[in-house]
Amino acid sequence: MATLTGLSIIGQETVSPANSATSFRAVNPATGDFLEPAYSSASLSQVESAVQRAADAASAYGKLSGKEKGRFLRSIAEGLEGAAEELVARAHLESALPLKRLQGELARTTNQLRLFAQVAEEGSWVQARIDPAQPDRKPLPRADIRSMLRPLGPVVVFGASNFPLAFSVAGGDTASAFAAGNPVLVKAHPAHPGTSEIVGRIIAGSVHTCGLPAGVFSLLFDAGVEVATALVQHPWVKAVGFTGSLAAGKALMRLAAERPDPIPCFTEMSSSNPLVVLPEALAERGTQIAAGLYESFTLGVGQFCTKPGLVFLPADSSADTFVAELTKRTAEGAAAVMLTPGICGSFHTRLNQHKAHDQVQVLAEAAQPSNSNGASAVPALLQTTGDALLKSPELAHEVFGPSTLVVRYADREQLLALARAMEGQLTASLHGTESDLMAAADLVEALQQRAGRIVFNGFPTGVEVCHAMVHGGPFPATSDSRWTSVGSQAIYRFSRPVCYQDFPEAALPDELKSGNPLDIWRLINGNWTRDAVMA
Amino acid sequence: MATLTGLSIIGQETVSPANSATSFRAVNPATGDFLEPAYSSASLSQVESAVQRAADAASAYGKLSGKEKGRFLRSIAEGLEGAAEELVARAHLESALPLKRLQGELARTTNQLRLFAQVAEEGSWVQARIDPAQPDRKPLPRADIRSMLRPLGPVVVFGASNFPLAFSVAGGDTASAFAAGNPVLVKAHPAHPGTSEIVGRIIAGSVHTCGLPAGVFSLLFDAGVEVATALVQHPWVKAVGFTGSLAAGKALMRLAAERPDPIPCFTEMSSSNPLVVLPEALAERGTQIAAGLYESFTLGVGQFCTKPGLVFLPADSSADTFVAELTKRTAEGAAAVMLTPGICGSFHTRLNQHKAHDQVQVLAEAAQPSNSNGASAVPALLQTTGDALLKSPELAHEVFGPSTLVVRYADREQLLALARAMEGQLTASLHGTESDLMAAADLVEALQQRAGRIVFNGFPTGVEVCHAMVHGGPFPATSDSRWTSVGSQAIYRFSRPVCYQDFPEAALPDELKSGNPLDIWRLINGNWTRDAVMA
Repeated sequence: MATLTGLSIIGQETVSPANSATSFRAVNPATGDFLEPAYSSASLSQVESAVQRAADAASAYGKLSGKEKGRFLRSIAEGLEGAAEELVARAHLESALPLKRLQGELARTTNQLRLFAQVAEEGSWVQARIDPAQPDRKPLPRADIRSMLRPLGPVVVFGASNFPLAFSVAGGDTASAFAAGNPVLVKAHPAHPGTSEIVGRIIAGSVHTCGLPAGVFSLLFDAGVEVATALVQHPWVKAVGFTGSLAAGKALMRLAAERPDPIPCFTEMSSSNPLVVLPEALAERGTQIAAGLYESFTLGVGQFCTKPGLVFLPADSSADTFVAELTKRTAEGAAAVMLTPGICGSFHTRLNQHKAHDQVQVLAEAAQPSNSNGASAVPALLQTTGDALLKSPELAHEVFGPSTLVVRYADREQLLALARAMEGQLTASLHGTESDLMAAADLVEALQQRAGRIVFNGFPTGVEVCHAMVHGGPFPATSDSRWTSVGSQAIYRFSRPVCYQDFPEAALPDELKSGNPLDIWRLINGNWTRDAVMA
Repeated sequence: MATLTGLSIIGQETVSPANSATSFRAVNPATGDFLEPAYSSASLSQVESAVQRAADAASAYGKLSGKEKGRFLRSIAEGLEGAAEELVARAHLESALPLKRLQGELARTTNQLRLFAQVAEEGSWVQARIDPAQPDRKPLPRADIRSMLRPLGPVVVFGASNFPLAFSVAGGDTASAFAAGNPVLVKAHPAHPGTSEIVGRIIAGSVHTCGLPAGVFSLLFDAGVEVATALVQHPWVKAVGFTGSLAAGKALMRLAAERPDPIPCFTEMSSSNPLVVLPEALAERGTQIAAGLYESFTLGVGQFCTKPGLVFLPADSSADTFVAELTKRTAEGAAAVMLTPGICGSFHTRLNQHKAHDQVQVLAEAAQPSNSNGASAVPALLQTTGDALLKSPELAHEVFGPSTLVVRYADREQLLALARAMEGQLTASLHGTESDLMAAADLVEALQQRAGRIVFNGFPTGVEVCHAMVHGGPFPATSDSRWTSVGSQAIYRFSRPVCYQDFPEAALPDELKSGNPLDIWRLINGNWTRDAVMA
């Protein structure tokens, strides 16, 4: 890989900085030092050019076979593996995430690309539906009606700060949008431009190697909001994928909704991931659960969308041992460097707001390091009461960083009231025996109305990339609870059904031809089958 | 059926008018006379009470089995059939739609209810996905991950003016929301309150007969926008279904997007349904296609969402016979009564705007009846050029009523440019020979990017209720192109995936239990099967 250029990539071309370009540098959060090179913000005419090329590429790319799309996605995965050392090293400099974690994240990223390759190659994801003609039906004949999912068109993806690989340039949004047949325009996250450039050049290389239209992929840099705004407002952009803060996510949702033609905008934003320890489990293995919880809320310096930030425990003494263990571990915790100075500052601001609440008690906070250069934070454990949380619901808002809030509830009834007062969440976790769980049916019902994933006897951090995963949830967890941004179902965000009525066989897409040449699963007259349509 | 009361129905109870209630009467559009009884607008406290009951009912109703939901939907269908005579008579008075059409619409409505009953009973619609645990996986074991679709919660449905039965109180939105497990609050269309009340009482009766929680269904009357606004803004309302005008649909979208927690808002609004006659078909059977087109654009006095309102024909003499036939039929057309005086007024306003355009020519307009009491309109045929339409895109906007606009394009290139300049559409239709169609691949590609359904050698009016139907399309056809409001896929609008991680068998919903007790299709490790999960 050549030296980093600091320049955007527009449909295969590394573009020169615009005359009036502002530039920015990544910061090493461990030292506060700037990292070379300087990155030039893309100009609005460069945005226009990138979107124009994406729109030009949309038809040809959208018509590719699943096998061709699969080859492209696998080529990107191989490219990332080939650049693993350089990628992980740069991502470490830009994010302060440990090398081992970044190696794991790279494996997750290539696994994701291959999962979507497999989904595209297998082909049944298009939900082909066929209701054959019934020429003799009374009172009216039935036409031949066939439908399948088709790509939306150019998709804008925003890189996320907390996963410089798995939720960024070649992350799940990009992989699923490509698999569905859409060109992708990535707005790089300004915290890790170097990592973004390395990945972006690998994708551009795969576009070239696979002989795809150049506009299938572009990567744009910007430290401000101009490029983002122009992309989301552009009439040829058809959908948006984003993982980040509530404020930024809401701003994008507003831009998408206020377009003359509103477009789907998938923002994954804010979740406190409540965790409840039920009575028998608390008695049987409270200490062990507390130890697991400590690991979960401090994992990656608490910088996961699924960090458990609210822990519900009874107010009575049955939770004392649990709380004592959690307190001890937190007090013994070590400082760690957060992703960016800004994120670190926000963590402390939020934490201090909670600490300042007169019903919030600081149970433990690890010792600050004597030398606290850079964006460093220590684990913190706060406690409040169910009454206080019901009166001050802002205490339940996400705090992005290594802290959690223990909520001591008065009784089962109050626990249920607290669950019912909760905002939308990505996850909710329950620790219990099986009889605990059966006795908590009301609580499970309340949680599943408010969360996308319910975890039993586990911790929410660690989101498996598989077919059944749901990484989504009611607002403010995401913009729209009907979708997931992790797992193979993420592909459905970037497609729409198109129906063909009385089309001759030769003009139908292969997925809908009577003989089922692709051998995919299809719904014929309401039944799933891989059979051909009977004549 | 007892005499009409003029009152809203809130969870089984026919409620008294609020003290300050405003009241309104339906108008017989054929005579301009008011129809009894007066309908009281629901008060905001009645709205609050209805939503509260729906929210209270949501958990219990959402947990019903598919068989129980099927029984409820079938009971409504039987109730409608039992009241057929009264219903059709009242709907005729309120809408001026012919009795025969209303009988057909009633059959469509009961068919829809039974289709959704069947979908709920069969059960595979929940898209159960299971990725079993892999305890021995390296480097980390995989948890057991299972997900399925679950109801959203209370859904608000707006009755449509143009289908007093099939898209109103017990129409497709209500049937699909019920089938997915959601309570429904219907805001009746003020043009047919009597029809709405009859249907509403039948649904309330079925709620009672089936022993469901009373709040599963409410029906609210209002001639203004207060009730609608309060419903869409209510924090416990989780989704909205609407079919109607662009202005009203956009207002609802805005309300839904501007909530503190935005919710899905499905509005089906505006489509001109372009129709293209390709050269060989034009030569071979132009006259016959023209005759079919006349029937389609005047069907139901042009008051279908799928009325073909734009007809693309070459500028040269090859289209002259076609145009002559269409002109002759239009000139010979008869006056007919529209749904409401307001809709009739809007039709004439829009038509006159188009007529006033200096590049629009009136080819034919049927004779006005000498005695034109009521909301009567006659078929109209306008013509313009491709150049004019490219310069004045507003000529392509929907005109709701019995008119169509012939667009004479200069050449194939201009036809393609016109297609690419087109807004989102519910449908696009092509008439051609098979070789016409194969030669028009670019055009088909452009149309399928802009429409939900492409019809070959047919007319878009008449939307089959089946599994493969797509009645949706890019904005402004609908608020979100990824959904259909007709056909069994409409159920997916009102559900969201929920994931269960490491849940014990006993606590899983039946759909996700390993043994597959419901015998539904499930995606296990990415493969569709009805097999049990292997231990």
